[in-house]
Amino acid sequence: MTESLSVSMIIIGDEILNGRTTDLNGTWLTKYLFQRGLQFKSMRFIRDNVDEINNALTAALNDSDIVITSGGIGPTLDDKTKNTLANYFGKKIVESGDVANIVTENYVRFGRTWTKETNHYHFFPEDFVATPNPKGLAPGITYFSPEKKLVMAGPGVPREFTEIVEQEFFPLIKKYFAERFEDNFQTVIRTQGVPEEKIFFELCPTLWSDLEKFGKVSSLPHTIGIDIVISYHGDEKSHLVTQQKIKDLIMSTPLKDNVWQWGNVSVAELVLDKAKNKKCTFAFAESCTGGLASSKMTDLSGSSAVFHGGIISYDNSVKENVLKVKSQTLKDFGAVSIETATEMAIGVRDLLKVDYAVSISGIAGPTGGTPEKPKGTVAIGFASKDKSGAHLYLFPGDRIRLKDRFSDKALLTLLELMD
Amino acid sequence: MTESLSVSMIIIGDEILNGRTTDLNGTWLTKYLFQRGLQFKSMRFIRDNVDEINNALTAALNDSDIVITSGGIGPTLDDKTKNTLANYFGKKIVESGDVANIVTENYVRFGRTWTKETNHYHFFPEDFVATPNPKGLAPGITYFSPEKKLVMAGPGVPREFTEIVEQEFFPLIKKYFAERFEDNFQTVIRTQGVPEEKIFFELCPTLWSDLEKFGKVSSLPHTIGIDIVISYHGDEKSHLVTQQKIKDLIMSTPLKDNVWQWGNVSVAELVLDKAKNKKCTFAFAESCTGGLASSKMTDLSGSSAVFHGGIISYDNSVKENVLKVKSQTLKDFGAVSIETATEMAIGVRDLLKVDYAVSISGIAGPTGGTPEKPKGTVAIGFASKDKSGAHLYLFPGDRIRLKDRFSDKALLTLLELMD
Repeated sequence: MTESLSVSMIIIGDEILNGRTTDLNGTWLTKYLFQRGLQFKSMRFIRDNVDEINNALTAALNDSDIVITSGGIGPTLDDKTKNTLANYFGKKIVESGDVANIVTENYVRFGRTWTKETNHYHFFPEDFVATPNPKGLAPGITYFSPEKKLVMAGPGVPREFTEIVEQEFFPLIKKYFAERFEDNFQTVIRTQGVPEEKIFFELCPTLWSDLEKFGKVSSLPHTIGIDIVISYHGDEKSHLVTQQKIKDLIMSTPLKDNVWQWGNVSVAELVLDKAKNKKCTFAFAESCTGGLASSKMTDLSGSSAVFHGGIISYDNSVKENVLKVKSQTLKDFGAVSIETATEMAIGVRDLLKVDYAVSISGIAGPTGGTPEKPKGTVAIGFASKDKSGAHLYLFPGDRIRLKDRFSDKALLTLLELMD
Repeated sequence: MTESLSVSMIIIGDEILNGRTTDLNGTWLTKYLFQRGLQFKSMRFIRDNVDEINNALTAALNDSDIVITSGGIGPTLDDKTKNTLANYFGKKIVESGDVANIVTENYVRFGRTWTKETNHYHFFPEDFVATPNPKGLAPGITYFSPEKKLVMAGPGVPREFTEIVEQEFFPLIKKYFAERFEDNFQTVIRTQGVPEEKIFFELCPTLWSDLEKFGKVSSLPHTIGIDIVISYHGDEKSHLVTQQKIKDLIMSTPLKDNVWQWGNVSVAELVLDKAKNKKCTFAFAESCTGGLASSKMTDLSGSSAVFHGGIISYDNSVKENVLKVKSQTLKDFGAVSIETATEMAIGVRDLLKVDYAVSISGIAGPTGGTPEKPKGTVAIGFASKDKSGAHLYLFPGDRIRLKDRFSDKALLTLLELMD
């Protein structure tokens, strides 16, 4: 296998050195490139300043095959990227009809008109290649040097940057580095209920090295468990073979009972797909998660077809008066209990007249824990037409993380309930 | 004013080059340092590899006064940071009683015992200074060179990294660079309802340059408006004077009506504080935000004293059956209307028996918009003991951003309702 293509990034702009807006493009790019088998090497934050751009370019070109910059390609005086790149590579800036056409089309997409009087976008370094900007106006700037280094300058606005990388820059990487580029694939195994150490040291001590025979292995914690990701080069056909071999391997280990998904889809998306297929409706009764499970569902377009709503019963009075949890149940067993969670699920099912209901009542902390029910304890209840019940779980983490974990566990409970 | 202290970061670890876990420490550090007046210069992602650490160190020391690394300080063989730093600066590694004491205390905080057999943490480079690790076990590693460069190596786990920077590394920066360090202050003006261009080009064309007389100005979009941040050096006393001058300046402009806060607190925190002071209770009726406003409130510890819960009326049947919105109202005016939002707020106020209620009904898209009520339209309703009503607003953005904006606008409506 040849050495992975390496990429460095330069983030240009006085306004982004403040740290509030810097991270979006870089964070996104590292993830995007990793998934495609490229290696991210370095990221530099610099001002819109000729010397700083020159220095960063030299260092980044030294680190990597490919240098991607974001920011400073707009029409104003403080946008210095184009001229600086031209000077850096010793290219004259000339008027270009090709670039004028690309810019014209960028403007048309926004329902606007561009003329040579609008700005100087059509003045472009010789031997450079302009690209469309699918979500913006300024053209992308690219140059493939005789030393086989590829430099690509994109816009700073995150939604413009991600689109230009996906639609324009990445295809150029594949084109210019055709000999070295290999398609990258991943098999993702999403597990729940076992900590990372237990998987690899207790349950399946040879799993990691067994998986390494297929490719690069990483183990990534998510809200309710561990994702195991195996990345490898190949084509669509060899990928399917590898995927099946990995699946067979996992199914021969005790970890098989903890796998909840062979893929990389969120539990909310799985819930939405399944509910749409079954043409059923559902609702939540949420206490400590305060609406987070419902909010996750409504992040997805199309959820209104199956998600009817929910009751946030943060105060016990809401559990009693709206969800009709018996006050005796609350007194005898407490709010965080199998009994209360079951009645909450039944209550929201009947009130909202849905096919499936799931409830969440737990202790997100930092206060409220007891020796018997410590912080991180959660009761997840469920109710369908013909069955109801609840389970108790214990998760680690702080308040925000626990809300996230509790709500994903509730979505997973709903997914299983719909089986 | 002297040149700002500059910082570069090196993120070490094979496992973090995948882009899923890399960004937390870097993103956090850029923001943290900016707020303290330091300049973030570069960030490098490298593997746990001696050559890569050496190269990155040389480059980072060339960029900056201070180099902070994260990762690779654990006890296993692939944690190479300590030995590599020692070699880089030509220091022998020796057994250190001081470091053993720090490590012992790190373990005690976790209720565990450390002995010299546990690991090699107490072998430490000569002339280096170890620091406690408030949320972890491995000691922090720091070295101030004769060339007045400060290198500090912290853990990779984000909650450990942020604590060690706040409690240990930042005080060391202030100590070692006492002559060059100046305390940094910020005045934050949080506005709503006017776009950035309108503020600085139409409403107050001289505001930016007027503010620049006080310090460095940045304009940062948040969910429902623009935050204007002015950063400057000084002491607590001069800060208060500057803050007042800035406030006076803003109050003399048309922007004064759009300021909703002189400070840097989230609207949910303001709501919680005010409700606690007034000892009142509140609830939400949420449609398109699907529980997000409620979830934001319950992210805050202590919210259970004032937040009673909410109804997520995603489907119109829930608006009618649970919130008692009249079916005629829905038919005549639609779900996204002043009339429906008002009835939703009254409905949740009466059902949950709270002092204040706010409702949200809008079009988060991508579908559901009409020419009269395009995507981004939202009706925010309110009801207290003696008044009720609603307003219509229009926000830009995609579904996720609109949910965020609608819910913050609802929280702000609640804040004003409690006046």
